[in-house]
Amino acid sequence: MKALVYHGPNQKAWDDVPKPTILADTDAIVRVDAVTICGTDLHILKGDVPAVTDGRILGHEAVGTVDEVGSGVKNLKPGDKVLVSCITACGSCRFCREGRYGQCLGGGGWILGHKIDGTQAEYVRVPFADNSTYPAPAGVADEDLLMLADILPTGYEIGVLNGGIRPGDVVAVVGAGPIGLSAIMGARLFSPSHIIAIDKADTRLEAAKQFGADITINNSREDALAVVHSLTDGLGADVAIEAVGVPATFELAAELIRPGGHVANIGVHGEPATLHLETMWIKDVTITTGLVDTYSTPTLLKLISNGQIAAGQFITHHYGLHDFIEAYDVFSRAGETGALKVVLTRQTN
Amino acid sequence: MKALVYHGPNQKAWDDVPKPTILADTDAIVRVDAVTICGTDLHILKGDVPAVTDGRILGHEAVGTVDEVGSGVKNLKPGDKVLVSCITACGSCRFCREGRYGQCLGGGGWILGHKIDGTQAEYVRVPFADNSTYPAPAGVADEDLLMLADILPTGYEIGVLNGGIRPGDVVAVVGAGPIGLSAIMGARLFSPSHIIAIDKADTRLEAAKQFGADITINNSREDALAVVHSLTDGLGADVAIEAVGVPATFELAAELIRPGGHVANIGVHGEPATLHLETMWIKDVTITTGLVDTYSTPTLLKLISNGQIAAGQFITHHYGLHDFIEAYDVFSRAGETGALKVVLTRQTN
Amino acid sequence: MKALVYHGPNQKAWDDVPKPTILADTDAIVRVDAVTICGTDLHILKGDVPAVTDGRILGHEAVGTVDEVGSGVKNLKPGDKVLVSCITACGSCRFCREGRYGQCLGGGGWILGHKIDGTQAEYVRVPFADNSTYPAPAGVADEDLLMLADILPTGYEIGVLNGGIRPGDVVAVVGAGPIGLSAIMGARLFSPSHIIAIDKADTRLEAAKQFGADITINNSREDALAVVHSLTDGLGADVAIEAVGVPATFELAAELIRPGGHVANIGVHGEPATLHLETMWIKDVTITTGLVDTYSTPTLLKLISNGQIAAGQFITHHYGLHDFIEAYDVFSRAGETGALKVVLTRQTN
Amino acid sequence: MKALVYHGPNQKAWDDVPKPTILADTDAIVRVDAVTICGTDLHILKGDVPAVTDGRILGHEAVGTVDEVGSGVKNLKPGDKVLVSCITACGSCRFCREGRYGQCLGGGGWILGHKIDGTQAEYVRVPFADNSTYPAPAGVADEDLLMLADILPTGYEIGVLNGGIRPGDVVAVVGAGPIGLSAIMGARLFSPSHIIAIDKADTRLEAAKQFGADITINNSREDALAVVHSLTDGLGADVAIEAVGVPATFELAAELIRPGGHVANIGVHGEPATLHLETMWIKDVTITTGLVDTYSTPTLLKLISNGQIAAGQFITHHYGLHDFIEAYDVFSRAGETGALKVVLTRQTN
Repeated sequence: MKALVYHGPNQKAWDDVPKPTILADTDAIVRVDAVTICGTDLHILKGDVPAVTDGRILGHEAVGTVDEVGSGVKNLKPGDKVLVSCITACGSCRFCREGRYGQCLGGGGWILGHKIDGTQAEYVRVPFADNSTYPAPAGVADEDLLMLADILPTGYEIGVLNGGIRPGDVVAVVGAGPIGLSAIMGARLFSPSHIIAIDKADTRLEAAKQFGADITINNSREDALAVVHSLTDGLGADVAIEAVGVPATFELAAELIRPGGHVANIGVHGEPATLHLETMWIKDVTITTGLVDTYSTPTLLKLISNGQIAAGQFITHHYGLHDFIEAYDVFSRAGETGALKVVLTRQTN
Repeated sequence: MKALVYHGPNQKAWDDVPKPTILADTDAIVRVDAVTICGTDLHILKGDVPAVTDGRILGHEAVGTVDEVGSGVKNLKPGDKVLVSCITACGSCRFCREGRYGQCLGGGGWILGHKIDGTQAEYVRVPFADNSTYPAPAGVADEDLLMLADILPTGYEIGVLNGGIRPGDVVAVVGAGPIGLSAIMGARLFSPSHIIAIDKADTRLEAAKQFGADITINNSREDALAVVHSLTDGLGADVAIEAVGVPATFELAAELIRPGGHVANIGVHGEPATLHLETMWIKDVTITTGLVDTYSTPTLLKLISNGQIAAGQFITHHYGLHDFIEAYDVFSRAGETGALKVVLTRQTN
Repeated sequence: MKALVYHGPNQKAWDDVPKPTILADTDAIVRVDAVTICGTDLHILKGDVPAVTDGRILGHEAVGTVDEVGSGVKNLKPGDKVLVSCITACGSCRFCREGRYGQCLGGGGWILGHKIDGTQAEYVRVPFADNSTYPAPAGVADEDLLMLADILPTGYEIGVLNGGIRPGDVVAVVGAGPIGLSAIMGARLFSPSHIIAIDKADTRLEAAKQFGADITINNSREDALAVVHSLTDGLGADVAIEAVGVPATFELAAELIRPGGHVANIGVHGEPATLHLETMWIKDVTITTGLVDTYSTPTLLKLISNGQIAAGQFITHHYGLHDFIEAYDVFSRAGETGALKVVLTRQTN
Repeated sequence: MKALVYHGPNQKAWDDVPKPTILADTDAIVRVDAVTICGTDLHILKGDVPAVTDGRILGHEAVGTVDEVGSGVKNLKPGDKVLVSCITACGSCRFCREGRYGQCLGGGGWILGHKIDGTQAEYVRVPFADNSTYPAPAGVADEDLLMLADILPTGYEIGVLNGGIRPGDVVAVVGAGPIGLSAIMGARLFSPSHIIAIDKADTRLEAAKQFGADITINNSREDALAVVHSLTDGLGADVAIEAVGVPATFELAAELIRPGGHVANIGVHGEPATLHLETMWIKDVTITTGLVDTYSTPTLLKLISNGQIAAGQFITHHYGLHDFIEAYDVFSRAGETGALKVVLTRQTN
C-alpha cells in the first residue's frame, strides 16, 4: 500500500510499504477514508520529536472502515465506519480507569504516527481497537467527523473544560491557529460573555471571528492587557487559554488572568517559560496543562450529530489520499495559503 | 497604649502610641490578649514590603476581647472574646460574596499590620468587624485559638484544599518551617498514605515528624526525586505543596509531581521561577497559588474545639505582651532557637 | 402610599398605607418602578402560607430607585437604580458566608412579602440593603431586569446548576409554566443536545418551544417515558427538572432519569411524594431540592447586559402600578389569558 | 468441585458441580481461597431476587488464585493472587468509561452469584478478568483483603464519597449493621467531628463504637432528631447515611439532615419511601443512591496495605470452605450470634 513515510529531518515520501497486519488480538486494521495533517506532524518533520525514527508512517487522525479485527476485539467488525482517535487506550491501567487515556501506562497514549505507524496511509493498524475507535454516527460526513480525532477534543478538554469556562465569563484565547479556533468553538458551548482572540496575524483573527470570537486583538500593534482590563474593571480575564506553545504566549496568558482565574495551557512547548510567582503567588490562580485524553469524544459525537458544532468550518483544503506531498506543502505554508485543516480522502471511483 | 511600631527597614520599637478609636461604624476596638509574629513580619522589617511605612503598628494575628463596637456592628458586643483573622472582609464585594475574602475589593483583604495598624499592640481597630472576627469557642486556650488567625487556615486552604488531597495520596511538602508544618497537620485530616517532608535542616525535619510526616528527606544530601519515585512506581507525588517561597523549592515541587497531580504553592515569592513547560505541557498538571481567604475558619474552629487539631503544637516560646523586642529576636533566629510560633499574652496580674 | 395588602385567604386590596421608614441602619427605602406577581403570591392568597398574616403587603420582586438609606448602608445612595432581589441576606451568618443566602440565619432569606412587607407598593423597605440589591446595569430596561428578581435565578440555580447540565445532555423539564420556561432558558446556556418540555397544556408547550425546547410532550395524551427512552437508547434523561410542585410531576421526573442522572426539584410542594427506592436505590441517582439563593445574580446581570438571555420574553402583560387588582386577575387566570409574567410599572407622567 | 447452590426460596445445598471453564477469551478461572457471605445472599435465599434461579452458585466476593486465563486476558497469569470484585466491568461501554462499572452495559455489573455462577465455590469463572480483579498487595492477609470485594467500597463510595463528608462534619449513620459500620470506618478518613450511629440494637451500637462512632443513639428508646439537633444548633446533620433499606430508616435519615446537607442512601430497598417534599423542597438537600462501582478499590488497596483501614475488624467468624451451611446459619442469625462478616477459607493441609 501507499503511505507517507518519515525519513529523518525534512525528509518524507509517499512510499510503497507493506499493508499492516494484526499483531495483537485487540488490534484492528482500518482502511483510511479520510485523514488530515496536524501541526505536530510538522514538528516531527523538523526533527523536533526524536522518538519518531526513519521509516515511521506519520499521522494520528483518521476516519476509516474496519478491514479486519483481532480475536479479542469485541465491539467492531469489518465494514464498520469508525473514527480513529489520536489517543490509544489499553483500558485497564490506572490512568485509563480514570479516563486519563493520554497518560496510558499499558502501551497506549499518543502512539500512532509517533511510536508506531500512523494514519497517513491506505491502511492503519489500531491497537486496543475497542477503546481507541468510535462508531461513526449516521449522517455525519467523514470530513467533519475527522475533526474529532484530535483538534476538537484537544481544544475542548485542555482549553475549555480544564479552564472551567462558565456562562458570563470573559475568555481570552492567545493564538488563533487551528487549536485556538477549536478552543473558541468549544468555549461557545458554555455561553461566555466575551471571547477575545489574540494573535499577531490579522488573517487568523478574521478566522477567529468566524469561529465565534467577538473581540480580536492584534498584539503586534495592540496592548492586550489594556483591552482585557478595560472589559473587566481592571481585574483580568476569567479564563485565559494558551494555544501556541512558546514562552511569550504563555506569559501573556498568565498576565491577562484575574484573581481567582484559570490559565489553561494547550500549546506544545519546547522550552521553559518564566512564571511570575512574585506577582502570582497572591492571585489565587490555577494553571493547567495537558495532553488530550479524548474522554469527551462521546459528548462531541452527540454535538456534531446534532449540528451543535460545525466541525467542517476547519476544513480549508481538500485532496485525494495520493496528494499528500502537496497537502503537506500547503499546510506547512499556512501563513500564505490560509490553511486551517487540510483533508485527504480516499478516491472511491 | 504600647505597640510594636515599624520605623523603616530594620527599625522597630515598643512605643507609646494613642489607643485606636472607632473610625467607621463597622469597626470594633479589640483588646489584645494573645498575639504572635508571622514570617511576613520579618519580611516587612527587612523592607521587602514597601506598602508598610514608617509609623505602622505591625501584626495581623490576635485573640482578644471586644472593647468597643461601632454602631453598625451587629454580632459583637464589648466583652466578647474573639479571634481576629489576618484577613478583613467587607462582605459585600464580588470576591467576598464568593468567599474569596483575601481578594476583597471593598477595603479588606490583608490590611492589618500592612495598610492599617495591626495587632502587635494593647488594642487594635478591626474594620468590618462582623466579617473579620470569629467568636472564641468555649474551652479553647487563647494561645491555641491564635493559631487560627493565619497559619492554620493558610496551610489548610492554600496547601491542603487547593492541592485536593485525598485518602491514599502521596503528598510531598517542600519546606518544613511553620507553614509547611501547618500543611502537614492539615493534610492528615484527609488520610493520605504518605506525607513526605523535604527540607535542608534536620531540626525542621524532626519537627515535621512530630506534626505527622512519615517520611523525611534532607535534600541537602538526599535525592528527593529518587525517594518520591521509589514510593510511587516512578510516577511522582499526587500532591506537592511548596511552603518556602523561592524558585528552587517551587521548581522542586513541580518536578516531584505525577501526571495528573497538583502543585499547591503557599510560599510568598519575591522573584520569578522557571516553569518547565517543555516537560510539563503533556503531564496534566494543575498548579495553584493563593493568599489565604479564611473561609475555612469555621471548620477549623470545629476541629480545634473537638480536639482534632493540636494547634498548641506550634507554640515553642511564650512571652508577656511587653517582651516584643525579645520575642522578635528569638523568632528571627529560628534556626538557632528552634522557634516555630512565639506567643505573647497580656499580663493579667 | 398605595400597596397591595393581604387581608386573609382570598382577600386583598389596593390600600392606602403608611410609607415605610428606615428601621435598621442597614435598611434602604426603595421607590418601586417595576414590580411583578409570582405564583407564590397566588398560593399566599389561597391561605397556603400561614406565616403571611392579615395586613401584609405582598411581593418579593422589584426594580426601583433608592429613596433613602440607613447610616450603615455602604454601597447605595439615593437615586441609584437597583434590582431588589427576592432573597435578603444578612451577609454574616454561616449560610450567607457560603453564598446560601436563601437559608440566611441572620434575619434574611425569603422575607419580603412574607415575614415583612413586600414590593407590591409604591415604596418598599429593603433590609440588609447592601447584600439584597444589585445596581442596575446600563442599557437594560426595568422590565427585563425585573425578571432577575426571582424567576431567572430560580430556574438557573435550582434547575440548571443543581441539575449539572452539560453540553450534549438530554434534559427533560416537567412543567412548562414560567418557572419551567426559566429552566429551559437557562439550560440553553450549557448547550444540551435536547430540551424536552412536558406539560398537559398545549399552549404552555408552544411557549416552551419559543423559549428553546426542541421536543414537546403533552403527557395528557403522550407517553413521556417512551419518548425519552426513544431518544436515549432506553436509558433516560441526563437531567430531569421538576417545575410544578405536585407529587405526580416529581414522580414523573424521577422516572425519566437515566442511571447516573440528576433530578432537580424546583417546584414548591404542599404534600409528600413517593420515592420509588425499590427501583432507584441501584440507579446512582442524585436528587436535589432548593430555594433560590440568588448567588447567580451577578452572572445573570452580565448575561442580560450582553443580550445573552432575552428576559423580556417572559412578559406577556403590562400594567400601571395602580392596576394591581386587574393584574392579579389576569395572572391568576393564566390558563385563559396566556399570562407568563405580568409587569406593573410606575406611571411617570 | 463443591459449591453452594441456590435451589429456590429457602433451599440451598453444598453440592457437587462441574468446575467452571473458560467461556470467553477475557475470562479467568480463579481458585477461591477466601470467601464470605453478604446480606444480599440472605435476600436471595428468601426469594427476593427473582433473577436468581434454581441451580445458581451464590456469592460475589472472593480472594483467590488465578487457575487459568483466556487468550484475551492481558494482565493476569496462573498463580496470581487476586481480589475478585463484586462488580464485573466490560471496560468499554459508556458507563465503564466513566468509572460507573456497576451500571455496565456490556455484560458486567453485579452478575456474580446473580446472573452467572458466583464465588461460593472451589472455583469461579470471572468474566472480563482484567477489569474485574485486582492484584493482591503484598503483606495483606486474604481475609482482610476480602473485605474489599464489596463491603468496604460500598460503604466508602455510596456512603462516604456520595455523601461528600468533610473535616468537621457531623455525620449520622442510620443502621449499624456491617454496611453501616463500613460507612463509619470510611467516614473517619475525612475527619468528621462527630459520627453518630443510630440503631435499635445495643449490640450493634457497641460495634459502631469500636468502628469509630463517637455518639450512639438507640432509636427504639431515644429521640434521634433531638440528639442531632442538640449537637448542631438545631440545624441537623451535615451528612446522613441510610444503611438499612426500609422506608423508616430512609425517612429518618432525610429528617435528620440540615439545610444544604446530603442524604446518601446505601440500603437495598424493596418498597417505596415517602419523600417529604412539603418540608424538603426549600431545604437545599441532596439525596443520592447507588450501587457500588468499585472505582475506589485502588485507593482502598493503598489504605489497607498501609494499615490505614483495619478491614479485619469486620470478621467475627472463621470457617473452612466446606462449612458453608453452618456459616450461613450463623450469619443469618446475626442478632444472636453477633456475626458481622463470616469468612470461609480453603483448607491448605
